[in-house]
This record gives sequence, structure tokens and C-alpha cells, in this order.
Amino acid sequence: MDKLRLMTPGPTMVPPQVLAAMAGPMHHHRTAGHRRVFREVTDHLGYVFGTSGDCLVITGSGTAAMEAAIVGVGGPDNKALVFDGGKFGQRWARTCAAYGIAHVVHRLEWGTGARAAMVEEYLRADPAIDTVILTHSETSTAAVADLEGIAAVTRARGCLLVVDGITSVGALPLPMDRWGADIVVTGSQKALMTPPGLGIVAVSPRAWERIDSFSSRSMYLCLKAYRRGLATDDSPYTPAITLMMGLRAALEMIRAEGIERIWARTARLARATRAAVQALNLAVFARDPADSLTAVVVPEGLDEPVLRRRLRERFGLVVAGGQDQLKGRVFRVNHMGYVDEVDTLGLIGALELVLAEMGHAFRRGAGLAAAAEILAQSGS
Amino acid sequence: MDKLRLMTPGPTMVPPQVLAAMAGPMHHHRTAGHRRVFREVTDHLGYVFGTSGDCLVITGSGTAAMEAAIVGVGGPDNKALVFDGGKFGQRWARTCAAYGIAHVVHRLEWGTGARAAMVEEYLRADPAIDTVILTHSETSTAAVADLEGIAAVTRARGCLLVVDGITSVGALPLPMDRWGADIVVTGSQKALMTPPGLGIVAVSPRAWERIDSFSSRSMYLCLKAYRRGLATDDSPYTPAITLMMGLRAALEMIRAEGIERIWARTARLARATRAAVQALNLAVFARDPADSLTAVVVPEGLDEPVLRRRLRERFGLVVAGGQDQLKGRVFRVNHMGYVDEVDTLGLIGALELVLAEMGHAFRRGAGLAAAAEILAQSGS
Repeated sequence: MDKLRLMTPGPTMVPPQVLAAMAGPMHHHRTAGHRRVFREVTDHLGYVFGTSGDCLVITGSGTAAMEAAIVGVGGPDNKALVFDGGKFGQRWARTCAAYGIAHVVHRLEWGTGARAAMVEEYLRADPAIDTVILTHSETSTAAVADLEGIAAVTRARGCLLVVDGITSVGALPLPMDRWGADIVVTGSQKALMTPPGLGIVAVSPRAWERIDSFSSRSMYLCLKAYRRGLATDDSPYTPAITLMMGLRAALEMIRAEGIERIWARTARLARATRAAVQALNLAVFARDPADSLTAVVVPEGLDEPVLRRRLRERFGLVVAGGQDQLKGRVFRVNHMGYVDEVDTLGLIGALELVLAEMGHAFRRGAGLAAAAEILAQSGS
Repeated sequence: MDKLRLMTPGPTMVPPQVLAAMAGPMHHHRTAGHRRVFREVTDHLGYVFGTSGDCLVITGSGTAAMEAAIVGVGGPDNKALVFDGGKFGQRWARTCAAYGIAHVVHRLEWGTGARAAMVEEYLRADPAIDTVILTHSETSTAAVADLEGIAAVTRARGCLLVVDGITSVGALPLPMDRWGADIVVTGSQKALMTPPGLGIVAVSPRAWERIDSFSSRSMYLCLKAYRRGLATDDSPYTPAITLMMGLRAALEMIRAEGIERIWARTARLARATRAAVQALNLAVFARDPADSLTAVVVPEGLDEPVLRRRLRERFGLVVAGGQDQLKGRVFRVNHMGYVDEVDTLGLIGALELVLAEMGHAFRRGAGLAAAAEILAQSGS
């Protein structure tokens, strides 16, 4: 039997309810029925993002949504501070460069997240900086930024805060309005439990003031076009109708469970995984570990691709390898979306079996015991 | 019973085989399995486009794909001639303007298509023009351009030809390499029988020379990034995995039927529809009618929204209304993709019933008879 368990930090597993919602007969998007789907998706997204601002859905990957956000706020007179602590931070700096947006890059040690004091220092030293762009949870290193603290600084200094929340929205606490983030972006294929293909951009009134102050240099990635669509529950360009149907079903599940309970579940799975990793004489890569995914360091002498292949071929468990400089050095495990305690315990157990086969030294059952202890302490 | 028949010119009906292909468990895109999907999709697209050039798949609407094409060839030293004969031609002119690409716009009378002599004249008068951007089949007016003739002109003059083939690729003859088009674009939701969400850009070696001669101003819509992915059967950004699975299934169906047979079927349905329209004392809007869809003029005194509502509510038949200046004046019927003679005869019959109810004068059965005569002459 080939029972696939996708434990990668995006795409994540898609619930059967969502798959079913996408499999009906094709309908048209300029109809009352689709407008209802659009309206419900928009409304549910406001709940998930914790915002009364506008939630815009773009057909494209999370990168498309981030590019729309960056080109939206990066006008000719603006200057951005971009945090680069991994593959995705790098990408946002390159996006600024492609559009000729003035910016400085702060390189973080991989595995660490941006902190409020760093932002404070830049803003004090360079008053031209009016925009901060950062990744809440960096998917390549599994490190988390102190977003709440940073938002307090940017808000106090009248600076816009643009957040790549691709592996955080719906997984980590990120109450956008309460904390004061101005633009928050995510993708459909992470905590939102939907196949990839939709990027979401939530925009605060403060961000709109900036966006409205100059002409967009893109048509497809122009946030103003998507805002015009909101007025009639419509998309400016043909939307990915089936993915919207799927997203509605997923958001209904999220709303039924409750976002705080989901945050707590995600954190519980992350803590259990980190405890198991240590008990198995492995290490968590990130010094500031995110709860949405865990990057596990593979010790010298263990062949990382072989480890992943055995998990996949023997157990149907798919985890992600490292990216760029972490290739072959870490594997990454997802805690977002449609994943639960049973999946997580199953993965830890299978990991024990594979590690033992590969000659790694640890006490059999130690990982499972450590995880179980965490789960017992923090029952749902 | 509510049996939906989507007869709009995109999204079009999606075959159950395609819906089923999208409904399996979610898998990851950086795997051998998905690379095979990617490779097969790319290969099948080459067949459909009639090209040995590169076929790139972008997660986004057809507009995203056209923007990628335009920003790809519109460098700082280039000048484009843009044909604007409807809603979509207008959009490509606006895209040039947003990116500051030098261009002249030739406005066509709505319902007519671009012709070779027009292109010849512009190129003779203004040697700075090195790019022609046009819509093969304009979805808003259902008019077709003389693409073969135009390609001969642009090829002879060393000018790049960029084609919006959104409602033509896979429906109208468009052998890209044979005719000598340089970039051809389509979307998944038309003749390719897949839900919306994928834009496809086919690129000739001549077009790559231009694209490689300057830096892209977009990251997400940079064709070079997608070409790099081709080398490893991969997408530069997370692809819409389920839509790729669906597209593969649809392309397998297209390849099994054969593209020339599909072109012939599409033309037959269009001819039958046009004959029926005339027999019912209605008129075809376009002077240069495309075979991919038909725009039918609604005579004064007949309420177009009511006509469409009756088709939908009584028969489950969804046709499209007019756009922009044609709103309330035409309705549009699809001949692309998963639509056959039975669907078309059914629509004509239902249209007769609704027209009679609404007091329109015609001989009952005349539309059906005219359509049947065409179908009898040109049996599959």
C-alpha cells in the first residue's frame, strides 16, 4: 500500500473536504454563485489575518503576492529596510533591486530572526527608511522574527511594515490589526490547507495611502486593480475558480476550529517535534525556532538524502530537504495546516526506525517519549 | 434537476477526467513524480503550439502570461505596434504604458481583426517599430486577425510578433513555428479544458535573443526564471500543482484526438452556430468572425440580460454577455474545448424556445435546420 503523507512545509496536506470542493462541474466567475464564494473567502481571510483591512486574492504563488506588495509600497521616493535571513529574505531584496526600489539589506545569521532593536537602530540612523520588509517565519531556516516587537517600532515611527507571512499566517499568532502590521502576505498551500496557486495580500488603510500615492509599474500585480474588484466581489483578471472553491472549504474548517486553537495546536506539534529531535541526539537548526516548521540538523556521517529517501520509500513520509547553503545539512518538517498529533508521532517513530538502521546512536523510544510528554502536558 | 452547461468562452467546461486528475492526494513539486508531470505538460504544449521553442507555464491568468511576454520583449530600446480591437487589445496597450514601453496603438473597428497590409504600412512608415503585439482572436468581439499573413510580414522585416492566443491556441490553426510567430500566449481555461489559473507562454529562439538583451523589471513575470526551471523540469516559484495535474490530463485528451481534428471540430461548431444565428433573424457581431467563439447581436427590443437569464434558469445553459461597449448588445457562445455538436444543437434549440417566448420573429426550427445542414456537410 502506498499511503502518502506530505510533511513538507508547503505544499502541505489538503483535506478531502477541500479536494471535493474543487472537483465539481466548472462554473463561471461572473455569476452570483462565484461572487458569493469570493465574498465568503474575503470575509474568512479577514478573520484569519485578524484584520478589518482588505484581503486580496491573486492567482499566483506567494512570491507573486510578495512582489505585488513590494512594488505596491516601493514608490520612487521610498526606501526600504529588508531583512535577509534565508532564501526568501534574499528574494525580497532581489525584487526591490529588479524594480529599482531604494533599499538597504540587513543580513541575519541563518537560523535567527529579526528583532525590534535591529529595526530601531536602522530607523534611528537613517530617517529616509520608511518601509520595513521582513519574513515572519523564514521557510528555509525555520527561524522566526519578533514580529510583535518590530510592529510596535514601525508603528511608533510611522514606518510601513510589510510581512512575508507565507509560513506563518494561520499557523503562528499574527493578529495584523492588533500588532499593527501594514501588509501581510501568504500563500494558499501552507496553513490554509489548499493546493498552491493563490497568493493573498492583506492591506491596511495606512498601506493604501502609500500605494495610492504613485502609479503601479505592474498591471497584473497591481493591488489597486484587486481593490477595485472587491467592490463587486470580483477579480480583475480571471481567478483560479477551483482553487477559490477549495480555499472557501478550507477557511470554513479553520473558522470552525478557531484560529487560537489552531495556533495552539501548531505550537504543540512544534514543541513535541523539537523535544523529540533533542532526545534523538539531533539538533534543531534555528536559534530562534518557528513553530510552523522545524529544520533538523543531520549530523556529520549521516547521509541526508538517504534518510529522506528511506522515510519516503518505506513509510510514504515526505519531508523537505535543505535549500541553498543548507542542502544536505538539514531536513524540514511541517506543523502547519492539516497535520495532527498522530501524524507527528508517526513521523517521529518512523524517524527513529530509519535513524537506527543508519547507525545513528540514540536510545530507542526516546524521541517518542519526549514528544508524548509534551503532548500530555499541553492536551488540546 | 440542475444540469449546468457552461457555454461561455472561458472558463469552458472541464472534462470529468481532468477534474478527477486534480482530486488526488496533494503531493510535492520537488519530486520525480511532479517533474514527470512538468515534462509531459511541456512536451504536450509544444505539440499544441506547433513549436520546438520553449513552453513556459506561469501560475496566473492569461493576463499574467501576456504581461510576462510584453515586459519580456519590451526593452528600453524597443518600440511596439499594438493592435487594439477590443477589451484585451486595450489591456496590452495599457501594459506597455505601465512599464513605460515605447509603443503606438492602432485602433481597429470593433468586430474586425488586424490584417497584414496594416502591419506592412506601420513598419514601412516607422522603422523604429521592432515588435508587433496583437490578439489573434479577440474574446470581447469574437473577431479574428489574419495571423498567418501578419507573421509573414513581421518575419520578413525582422520584427518580433507577440500573439495573445488566449482564445485561439488549441482552437484555431496557429502552427507557431511554421507561421513564424515569436511569442504565443494562452490560458488554461479556454481550449485547454482546464480550470483557470495557468498562463502559458511559448517563446521562439528569436524572442529569447531579445529577452536576454536586457534585465527583467519583474521577478515573478520574468520569462528567464521560467526557462531556468525547464532545465530541471521545475518551476522557479511554487507551481499550481493540482492545475498542472489537470492540464496534463487535458493535454493527453487533446493529443489523442489530434490538433487538426480539434481545429476542424471547432470550425464546424462555429459555422453551424453562425448559420443558425442568421436563420433566426439575428446577426453575428464580428465582420471577421473567429471560429473559437461567436458574438451574437441582440436586436433592439429584446432584453439581453433577460435572454441570458432564461437560458440559464430554464436550461442550465450559461452564455457570456457583452463587455464594455458591447454590454447588453451581444451575447457570446463558446466553441472551444470540451464542447460538441450535441451541446451546440441543444443550445440552438433552447435559444429558439427562449426567443419565441420573448416575441422575436423567426420560423420555428429554422436555426436547428441551418445548423444541422452545416453539420451534415462537414461530418467529423
